[in-house]
Amino acid sequence: MVPEKDGFEGVEWRIRVADGSSEVPVTDTSLARKVWLRTKDLFSCLGLKVWMFLKKAWDIGANDPRKVIHCFKVGLALTLVSLFYFMRPLYDGVGGNAMWALMTVVLVFEPNVGATLYKCLNRIFATFFAGFLAFGVHWIASRSGDRFEPYIVGASVFLFASMATFFRFIPSVKSLFDYGAMVFILTFSFVAVSGYRVDKLFDFAHQRISTIIIGTSLCILVIILVCPIWCGQELHGLTVRNMDKLADSLSGCVTHYFTNINGEDDKRLQAYKCVLSSKASEDSMANFARWEPSHGRFNFRHPWKQYLKIGASMRSCAYCIEALNSCINKENKAAESIKKHLSASCLEVSSSSSSAIRELSESLKKMKLPTVHMFIGEMNRAVEELKNDLKSLSQLLDPSTTGENKEYETPFLEATGSVLFMEIIPVVTLASILIEIAVRTEALVGSVEDLAKLANFATIDDKFKKCDMKDKIVPDEEKPDGTLEALQRV
Amino acid sequence: MVPEKDGFEGVEWRIRVADGSSEVPVTDTSLARKVWLRTKDLFSCLGLKVWMFLKKAWDIGANDPRKVIHCFKVGLALTLVSLFYFMRPLYDGVGGNAMWALMTVVLVFEPNVGATLYKCLNRIFATFFAGFLAFGVHWIASRSGDRFEPYIVGASVFLFASMATFFRFIPSVKSLFDYGAMVFILTFSFVAVSGYRVDKLFDFAHQRISTIIIGTSLCILVIILVCPIWCGQELHGLTVRNMDKLADSLSGCVTHYFTNINGEDDKRLQAYKCVLSSKASEDSMANFARWEPSHGRFNFRHPWKQYLKIGASMRSCAYCIEALNSCINKENKAAESIKKHLSASCLEVSSSSSSAIRELSESLKKMKLPTVHMFIGEMNRAVEELKNDLKSLSQLLDPSTTGENKEYETPFLEATGSVLFMEIIPVVTLASILIEIAVRTEALVGSVEDLAKLANFATIDDKFKKCDMKDKIVPDEEKPDGTLEALQRV
Repeated sequence: MVPEKDGFEGVEWRIRVADGSSEVPVTDTSLARKVWLRTKDLFSCLGLKVWMFLKKAWDIGANDPRKVIHCFKVGLALTLVSLFYFMRPLYDGVGGNAMWALMTVVLVFEPNVGATLYKCLNRIFATFFAGFLAFGVHWIASRSGDRFEPYIVGASVFLFASMATFFRFIPSVKSLFDYGAMVFILTFSFVAVSGYRVDKLFDFAHQRISTIIIGTSLCILVIILVCPIWCGQELHGLTVRNMDKLADSLSGCVTHYFTNINGEDDKRLQAYKCVLSSKASEDSMANFARWEPSHGRFNFRHPWKQYLKIGASMRSCAYCIEALNSCINKENKAAESIKKHLSASCLEVSSSSSSAIRELSESLKKMKLPTVHMFIGEMNRAVEELKNDLKSLSQLLDPSTTGENKEYETPFLEATGSVLFMEIIPVVTLASILIEIAVRTEALVGSVEDLAKLANFATIDDKFKKCDMKDKIVPDEEKPDGTLEALQRV
Repeated sequence: MVPEKDGFEGVEWRIRVADGSSEVPVTDTSLARKVWLRTKDLFSCLGLKVWMFLKKAWDIGANDPRKVIHCFKVGLALTLVSLFYFMRPLYDGVGGNAMWALMTVVLVFEPNVGATLYKCLNRIFATFFAGFLAFGVHWIASRSGDRFEPYIVGASVFLFASMATFFRFIPSVKSLFDYGAMVFILTFSFVAVSGYRVDKLFDFAHQRISTIIIGTSLCILVIILVCPIWCGQELHGLTVRNMDKLADSLSGCVTHYFTNINGEDDKRLQAYKCVLSSKASEDSMANFARWEPSHGRFNFRHPWKQYLKIGASMRSCAYCIEALNSCINKENKAAESIKKHLSASCLEVSSSSSSAIRELSESLKKMKLPTVHMFIGEMNRAVEELKNDLKSLSQLLDPSTTGENKEYETPFLEATGSVLFMEIIPVVTLASILIEIAVRTEALVGSVEDLAKLANFATIDDKFKKCDMKDKIVPDEEKPDGTLEALQRV
């Protein structure tokens, strides 16, 4: 007899078979069913994942159809180059010209005009320069005899590759010639090494450069002619959008706090976070926009760098809105009477400064000189009012009651009640952050005005201009001059 | 006679020659001198610029010698590949194998191990995949007759290039396979197009893949064996450094405000700005670190994503420090008595929370479980103290005097004088921002503790652990619970 062993399950199964054969098909079906169910689960899970992925991909395409267009543009450029080489009698197999043109298209084609031009020009000039240098090195090497040739070539590759790599670390070089340095290393080492046994170096160089020029011209044609995306325009649009978001968040937060209306959707209140995170894309866009020719309303030497300054000013506002939000998002326990007391002036400051920002974005959009002085004047008046309201706050305080936990009813409008000092603090903090935001809004206005001057934005006619100038001369006491400092001078 | 014309200066000169020949050499010398001076100026200006550029380059190298080492590594890898192909009998001229290996090294070699591995693996797999796909397409095309062949090849290039380009826009694909998609397009179009007239496609594919493997292996060997820079280690180091900077700025700012000591250099006070601007580099490092094998104290599946959360927590602290700085940088006009009243507790909050952050950075550096509960307890006690001090502030206020510009002397310690309400506001704002910073410091502690759990940081022995657990159970009233909310509950 076979002894029953716990560890040996195969035996147990055989014993069961002996007990009743009816169990066998059941076991079999259940096993098959299990496998079937497992497989079905696996496939449905996989199908779901693929479906989710496709849905996400579809959403990306639907949200920004220009991405889809870019994909077709890449396909178009590559197909054109391929067909060009299919049709040409010059075609000479693998490693011939077709490869360089294809490679140029793949490596150089970027979603926007600026980046593509940057890469094209870098590629052409770096190839020229590296080619000439490599030819010189090859000439010297070939005169020095067979024995020294590999050493000279090897040393020169080491030296120039190291140097070019180092240049890529220097910020001013990197921003203009990063890709060029890479192409330089590639071309130099390639020509220097291949030159070793190829005599027709000039022919080869000529072919390589002509194919690169064909590739880059095709890229430039496709990128500019088929639904072009201009980096400068994008940067301009991003700045305008970010300004709108800043204004939305600012007015939204303060309104939400004082009126307790939840109508503002959370997405709009959090919009300022886009401003906080857009530094990297602004930097790269400003860098590429320099390479773009005059397009739309932008000249070749449009002051793109100034957009970075505007971006920095916007971020400094956004930091304050972040601090404001942290005041607001706490469970709201400030005394209602105090909130009521300050609400009018706080709302006025936030709405006038957000109007100023919206006006800035509007004028930037239309590329007109900003006429925000009215709003700035309003904002400064509101700031003064807020300061006065803050001053009068202390009358609400009853020193005898502070420190104790007291129940109270304060019909503030009659100004008879008194509130705890601690209940003032959140609103006071909010108010002083708001005043800081007003100061930073003025800085933002300054940076946009600088841009308007640098870029010669369309001026309004003289009559309007004079009105504007008068508006500019705001009486001294209306200027907000540094949040806390100004608050204390009263 | 030649009429004297104002516009025609050449005539005037000739007349002068007739008057006295002695003038000629003078004019000549002065002209020559001018040219000489101009040229000298030009050259000295150029020389100065070159000198400045070289000095900047030298500084970059001196500040981070690893950059110089990286340059030599690139040179070394390229030279090795070049010599490898010099020495090989397989060498078959331009466009042969050497080119692919050189190109692989140039395109794939990055300053850190993670990025290089990412590119190497992407390159190998994308080449394989695209090669097989292109071979299939080529096979189908070759069966469909000469007339349809170019159309099928062209359509497939268009289709696959567009699709691969679109995939690069999907964030989850982009973070893992961005470079792979580019190599896929390159290889696919290359093989599909070249396949048109090359029969020995398998031979060619075999050669291309073997050279790419040679190039990538060489890159990986050089990058790992010669002074490797690990992305994960860099990310870890950056996080630790940023934490130290945050702590420095926090304690520095508050100390500077209350003690008026200008000993702290400005650079240290502004250090938090590094934290604000390091998001992009953190993201890319966390992305590349995933590809790195186990190195130093980091395992292969180290929770790199958690570093991004720590970074976000640090930035939320840094936003508050920015707001704090804007309070402090104003011309300081808060009442000295008020400052004195709050200074002890404010300094205590800032020093204890910066000690907590410093302890966090220290434990992260050593990869030990953070033991910050003592500091957090201290911080919470200090926050309570600050709240009490704020409560007692209202006793200083004299409602009858507010709104008027009054001269006063307040020997605060005797608590007999009174100050204007407006003079309280800046310090109160600073205090409430400080309390918010304490809350955010706790969130930072939480995210570092999560990392410690996820990465199984070395635990301290049991006895210590128990002490730690006791420390954790802080009495409820000592926990700061949302800045403003907590302030109001008292």
